[in-house]
Amino acid sequence: MEIHILRLSHRLPRDERISTHVALVARAFGAEKIIYSGQHDSGLEASVERIGENWGSGADGKKFTIEYVKSAKSVMKKYKKDGFVIVHLTMYGIGVNDVVNEMKKHQKLLLVVGSEQVPKEIYELADFNISVTTQPHSEVAALAIALDRLQHGKELKNGGFDFNGKLRIEPCARGKKILSR
Amino acid sequence: MEIHILRLSHRLPRDERISTHVALVARAFGAEKIIYSGQHDSGLEASVERIGENWGSGADGKKFTIEYVKSAKSVMKKYKKDGFVIVHLTMYGIGVNDVVNEMKKHQKLLLVVGSEQVPKEIYELADFNISVTTQPHSEVAALAIALDRLQHGKELKNGGFDFNGKLRIEPCARGKKILSR
Repeated sequence: MEIHILRLSHRLPRDERISTHVALVARAFGAEKIIYSGQHDSGLEASVERIGENWGSGADGKKFTIEYVKSAKSVMKKYKKDGFVIVHLTMYGIGVNDVVNEMKKHQKLLLVVGSEQVPKEIYELADFNISVTTQPHSEVAALAIALDRLQHGKELKNGGFDFNGKLRIEPCARGKKILSR
Repeated sequence: MEIHILRLSHRLPRDERISTHVALVARAFGAEKIIYSGQHDSGLEASVERIGENWGSGADGKKFTIEYVKSAKSVMKKYKKDGFVIVHLTMYGIGVNDVVNEMKKHQKLLLVVGSEQVPKEIYELADFNISVTTQPHSEVAALAIALDRLQHGKELKNGGFDFNGKLRIEPCARGKKILSR
């Protein structure tokens, strides 16, 4: 399954850290690209690249990349043409449990992660509008849970995603063990 | 199961939104209290209270509360005395899959969510140091996944948590349906 993420309407300085968390969750949970619209942010891009340099670019040999775009809607239309199914995460959508099996039938997904006010056209352009609980919480958490469900919790498994990074953690009960190569 | 969250070392303005997301995830995923140390932040407290007023205070009749404390370590020691098992979320810990069944045996859990540099004593005070993947990503996502696993994905189920709020969402395929009472 090929999963790309589209983060809508990045605003500076307000979204600096939230968008970084969205990007790092995308990478750690096996997506292979994040695209963002709104304000261009070279700091956000540098953060993502720095993580890649140390911890490995992407899951299972993918090269995780970040790209800025001016128009989110144009990107969604282009992805549709390229055979991607578009899944918009919103607290107003259909529960993820009710559509996850349908989503898994598709090989290429674009997951759209909103900001505060998402224009109506995004809901219209999406093939699925899905919710991760119907309570207000966090696009970071919603993305993590959606990716977890789409990939059967692979990110948590021993022998799950391989990042092949310079740095690697050996899990331990107390303290920190970081291996480097 | 009674789950409280401890957010370490909240810093202003840097952590404003991340800590808000941590708090909202705690509430939406069924925890009943968030405690935070670091800098006092009346804006953070107001955000949590405003969500509660509109969407219902806590899951399943709980009253979700937020409390500021000066010393995280004192809180951890107090919770230990009160019979809580302390679980520290850290990318260096044992994989959540490997300890979740052990954690579920306990009725009262304090989940500790770190900030950038977590002092060694926190690792020592914790009964479990657990990781949600061994890759750098987000404490918001880590908390969501940990709560999801502890509660068997209850937050996503029809008839899952009941918030009994003034506002309620009716899931729909396009657009927004908000019911109010």
